[in-house]
Amino acid sequence: MKKFNVAKKIAKSVSDMSGYVPGEQPSDGGWVKLNTNEFPYPPSPRVKRAIVETVGKDGFGLRLYPDPASSTLRAQIAKYFGVPVEFAFAANGSDDALNLAMRAFADGRMSAATIDPSYSLYPVIAKMQGAKLQQIPFGKNMEIPYAKIFKSKANIFFFTNPNAPTGVGYGADVVEKIAKKFKGIVLVDEAYAPFSGFSATSLVQKCPNLLVIGTASKGWGLAGMRIGWAVANPAIIEVLDRVRDSYNLDRLSQVAGVAALADKAYYEKLCAKIVAERGETEKFFDKLGWGYFKSSSNFILFTPKNSAGFSGARIAADLFNYLRGKKILLRYFPKNKIINMSIRLSIGSPEQMKLFRAAALKWSKIK
Amino acid sequence: MKKFNVAKKIAKSVSDMSGYVPGEQPSDGGWVKLNTNEFPYPPSPRVKRAIVETVGKDGFGLRLYPDPASSTLRAQIAKYFGVPVEFAFAANGSDDALNLAMRAFADGRMSAATIDPSYSLYPVIAKMQGAKLQQIPFGKNMEIPYAKIFKSKANIFFFTNPNAPTGVGYGADVVEKIAKKFKGIVLVDEAYAPFSGFSATSLVQKCPNLLVIGTASKGWGLAGMRIGWAVANPAIIEVLDRVRDSYNLDRLSQVAGVAALADKAYYEKLCAKIVAERGETEKFFDKLGWGYFKSSSNFILFTPKNSAGFSGARIAADLFNYLRGKKILLRYFPKNKIINMSIRLSIGSPEQMKLFRAAALKWSKIK
Repeated sequence: MKKFNVAKKIAKSVSDMSGYVPGEQPSDGGWVKLNTNEFPYPPSPRVKRAIVETVGKDGFGLRLYPDPASSTLRAQIAKYFGVPVEFAFAANGSDDALNLAMRAFADGRMSAATIDPSYSLYPVIAKMQGAKLQQIPFGKNMEIPYAKIFKSKANIFFFTNPNAPTGVGYGADVVEKIAKKFKGIVLVDEAYAPFSGFSATSLVQKCPNLLVIGTASKGWGLAGMRIGWAVANPAIIEVLDRVRDSYNLDRLSQVAGVAALADKAYYEKLCAKIVAERGETEKFFDKLGWGYFKSSSNFILFTPKNSAGFSGARIAADLFNYLRGKKILLRYFPKNKIINMSIRLSIGSPEQMKLFRAAALKWSKIK
Repeated sequence: MKKFNVAKKIAKSVSDMSGYVPGEQPSDGGWVKLNTNEFPYPPSPRVKRAIVETVGKDGFGLRLYPDPASSTLRAQIAKYFGVPVEFAFAANGSDDALNLAMRAFADGRMSAATIDPSYSLYPVIAKMQGAKLQQIPFGKNMEIPYAKIFKSKANIFFFTNPNAPTGVGYGADVVEKIAKKFKGIVLVDEAYAPFSGFSATSLVQKCPNLLVIGTASKGWGLAGMRIGWAVANPAIIEVLDRVRDSYNLDRLSQVAGVAALADKAYYEKLCAKIVAERGETEKFFDKLGWGYFKSSSNFILFTPKNSAGFSGARIAADLFNYLRGKKILLRYFPKNKIINMSIRLSIGSPEQMKLFRAAALKWSKIK
């Protein structure tokens, strides 16, 4: 092989970046998987029907390119959120939509901003785009640092609502205040909105700078199908259309998304079940005297205490590893000093949560 | 709605670009669709089986994130092309891989190059990346302009082989010569390789600057599933991994890709059938005295002549529209002055080609 130094050929913004590291996806079975906030129930039965029908007798239809605009899915997204169809955009998961938004509205001259902590993908996609990302710390008790956001002069502001990894949700008043006073694009990343009772999509028709991004991964049980969307003023959608891949969603994801969004009743019932289970889990932490953020999501960021009543990074790591040893998988962020005394727990089925509670209770007594 | 000027918020490289315009995908039935080089036969029966098995009884598995690295698919790609697994990368269609390669290896300072004409996506993704794209014209009879390529000082060279839209294929000697003498990354975009008998993947272990990109859209009957790949030296693959979406392929596309690549015998037989049909079509053009490029692809770029023996843009447009009126859809590029006297014809099934030949013959007599 001739000598060739790839490192010298890498684009500047990519040369010193690392890719995003997603949560662990174990390939073996038997895990109580509470680490990546997946839906614990199967998707609507309409999803399977739509996929099987599209595959057909022998997959003949799969040989044709999908609808490049995902028109039927856009129409269903628009219908679901009660907006005109020109306000809707479909993406290969919400990560795709977030990446496209960064590409469309930030660069070496136009910066992005977010609140810290937020979804840890933002620094990765900002770096890739060669854009500066201002990470403005939350106020006390996760209060919104309005003044600093408005002073930031960023071109686009990424607002995770409900927040990840804290799970704290903010209402229409907060989003509207930011959208009114912030001079750039306000991107609301609401992967967890199905568990909060509020979606900022209700504001896009009066806030022309609001770009709301959602996903079927958390609230529709379709993380495996990569279905995301954006809802915004058509002038924003038009720019996302310029930068997207021309066939960004395959045929089966398009029909799965349509089928899921059409079955509102099925999901409302199951989301309510998850919210109830979240309440039970919070009561459990109250009983143990463990701290947590009151969640509007399908997960809880909690701070375990050992039997002596202490908490901290080592104690959190100990519980995380103890549970892992019992094949109960949670998410722990050891490198983030703001939250490394805490662990993130996805809300699973009642059976899964029972197993978690029993193991956590046992740990709290012996450690 | 408050006033908000989105145009002022758009990133510089995106502000004056237009998205790629893919070929027409009619949503109504009854078309003899010979416009986007799709496979005219169903995918391997293993594909349907793999999809149905993964969906399962009720789609329960779809709620879990896919394997972020597409490990099983990468292993199958590596096995198919006879390279170690570290040489393989999976993408959401080859357009995704091309876009990532542009993002990884070109920017405002490091330019890209290609030969003109080539796949019309390259100017779009170069512009989006703020990178200059040098479009070096082909020599007479579509000869490779070696000297100009080597003098270009581009950081990455995009080589469509077999070429689109001409269909002309180049062999191992050509690719190896370019890879040896060009100082940057040599990207071989071989969507049509299954119809040419040569894949540059056979050279990646001796050419460390070679990046070969392929797709299941053309040769595996899976355009609807968005499955693409890259095969290259692991140092190149590592950079693509940095910039890709962390879950770029959904669960069903991953298993469909594995199933298709595993059924070599099925596809070899059908690709041979398409190649034979291509020969028949070339004979038909010979009889009519119409010009065409000898194709190594599953399409032919031909130049129609009217009954008086004339050719040209107006005559090509006339035949294109005449066929369209009979619901026979080909691809015509009116804006490209190098090829606007020609029309691109996908090689379909024998039945489809019979319909095309009958209509074209009739046109040649009455026009």
